[in-house]
Amino acid sequence: MSLRVILFGLGPIGAAIGRLTQEKPNMKIVGAIDVDPAKVGQDVGQVIGLGRDLGVAVSADMAAVLATPADVVLHCTGSYLENVKDQLEACLKAGKNVVSTCEELAYSRRKHPALTANLDQVARDNGVTLHGTGVNPGFVMDKLPLTLTSVCQQVHRVDVTRIVDAGKRRLPLQKKVGAGMTEQEFRQEVDAGRIKHHGLPESAAMIADYLGLPVTKIEEAIEPVMATAPVTTEFLTVQAGQVAGVKQICEATGDGKLLVRLELQMYVGAPDAADTVHVHGTPDLTLTIPGGTHGDLATAAAAVNAVPLVAEAREGLRTAADLPVRFAPGKQVGVLA
Amino acid sequence: MSLRVILFGLGPIGAAIGRLTQEKPNMKIVGAIDVDPAKVGQDVGQVIGLGRDLGVAVSADMAAVLATPADVVLHCTGSYLENVKDQLEACLKAGKNVVSTCEELAYSRRKHPALTANLDQVARDNGVTLHGTGVNPGFVMDKLPLTLTSVCQQVHRVDVTRIVDAGKRRLPLQKKVGAGMTEQEFRQEVDAGRIKHHGLPESAAMIADYLGLPVTKIEEAIEPVMATAPVTTEFLTVQAGQVAGVKQICEATGDGKLLVRLELQMYVGAPDAADTVHVHGTPDLTLTIPGGTHGDLATAAAAVNAVPLVAEAREGLRTAADLPVRFAPGKQVGVLA
Repeated sequence: MSLRVILFGLGPIGAAIGRLTQEKPNMKIVGAIDVDPAKVGQDVGQVIGLGRDLGVAVSADMAAVLATPADVVLHCTGSYLENVKDQLEACLKAGKNVVSTCEELAYSRRKHPALTANLDQVARDNGVTLHGTGVNPGFVMDKLPLTLTSVCQQVHRVDVTRIVDAGKRRLPLQKKVGAGMTEQEFRQEVDAGRIKHHGLPESAAMIADYLGLPVTKIEEAIEPVMATAPVTTEFLTVQAGQVAGVKQICEATGDGKLLVRLELQMYVGAPDAADTVHVHGTPDLTLTIPGGTHGDLATAAAAVNAVPLVAEAREGLRTAADLPVRFAPGKQVGVLA
Repeated sequence: MSLRVILFGLGPIGAAIGRLTQEKPNMKIVGAIDVDPAKVGQDVGQVIGLGRDLGVAVSADMAAVLATPADVVLHCTGSYLENVKDQLEACLKAGKNVVSTCEELAYSRRKHPALTANLDQVARDNGVTLHGTGVNPGFVMDKLPLTLTSVCQQVHRVDVTRIVDAGKRRLPLQKKVGAGMTEQEFRQEVDAGRIKHHGLPESAAMIADYLGLPVTKIEEAIEPVMATAPVTTEFLTVQAGQVAGVKQICEATGDGKLLVRLELQMYVGAPDAADTVHVHGTPDLTLTIPGGTHGDLATAAAAVNAVPLVAEAREGLRTAADLPVRFAPGKQVGVLA
């Protein structure tokens, strides 16, 4: 079965997702939506960096593109559900299944109960599936630990620590974590809401609700990681005493007990990059992914692997834990690089 | 919703599963089947080691017990699908969903295509779900690596190594891996089919088929691990030069290329017990569970956690990768031991 996809949002992640669909033998781009005047009217193949035309022009006219017959919309325009809810509704009402990288959509029931119920209803009314995914939220801090609990008899608490060496990532990410700032600048950016990775409270809520943990409070703190020695990346140098990046901690508690603890460290020069999950329970299980799960590669993969899934899944809003496991094979399989 | 379960097979794993259902607030044992004369007629609560009566007598009369209204049968009677297919069919025809620890059922499509298609059809005809699960097969060597591939853009090969320190497990397991035998005795037991962990070819086939890897041949080898120094466990002592346990390797290939490699080491005194997964791909991902996933605890957990799942899942035969993530919360949640 060939799956016709519409790309909605052509920033770095949307473009990476678009390129990856072209490595899957059963996916075809039939539409592309973006409001950037530099992209509108261009061929989507050029805009996403394929280096060749696909015969589909990028358009800012959402309604017109959504009128195109298609199976799945790959939606990558924002992190906040309030900001993208009209886009998602438009997709669903056009009868399209949706895979979105909107972080809040990965698990929105606690933060936006009414909005979530409404999107779920719109999806059901139109016989389609809505799914939020990515690597974090969507995998490292929720689906992966939840998968581990499927072999646990009892679970009392879940801890996840993700340490990312921002120095090995894109310049925008290095900037985004505050690398090179003074501590004061960093705290101003945090207060302004500009330094913040989205999704930890969503992952904590998802773990709590799927495990039946009695979480009543979810709190988040953002602190700088200071460089103790100079760090030079491909793009910039951080001096000792400057900010190297961010440490974000999310704690979910109930009746004074810590039930879910998520910690994200993203800073240049991180020596021990890894994703680590600890399920406190019977059996007590620890899992480590040394080096960690590459954010950009994995987010694009999670979205594209979900395309065949949402095309088949039950209608409604579905989380990563609601769906079965799926990998979308590429054109060349079993070929070691 | 209260889930009524029937226990079918009350060996060590079946008993552990039965005990675990009694820690879940929404599961009730309404029937128990076993052919052992020492168990028939006894109260199932005593037989599974609860130390109290449940008001349900163990019966050898399969048809009579299966006539009891119930939601799910927890089936633990054997490893070979041919030997248990009549039992499974009887459960399905009685309108019961089934969770089975039969290793071959974890993924039986390649080895028993006709039998698999038939069981799938019987399940569909009766509107119920049939599911094979466990820790291995069912998790460490199939569901866990497949879950990891959900964030991969490309996958070329999958390796899993599971190292179990048999010295920390039950005596029957230590005997089963050949601990204390001479190499000749060990090879005789292998030739007789008595030393063999079931499920590696099933896991290899499951990985291959879900990832679209062009596997045409699946081969398995069983070798002894010899003790180089004396090892004493709670139950026995293995001298240097005697067999400490077993090393089993399963390789799935296509066109001469190795596509899936599964290695299981189970021996007394194993110093580095761990489950390790390596997905060769983009991103290239390695995952380790130090100490490994405890076989008995995790198999019972996998079966009991699947009870609410199969009660809701689409009808037919469903593998671990077909089903969403699920943990069945206990009576006490969020309580650290």
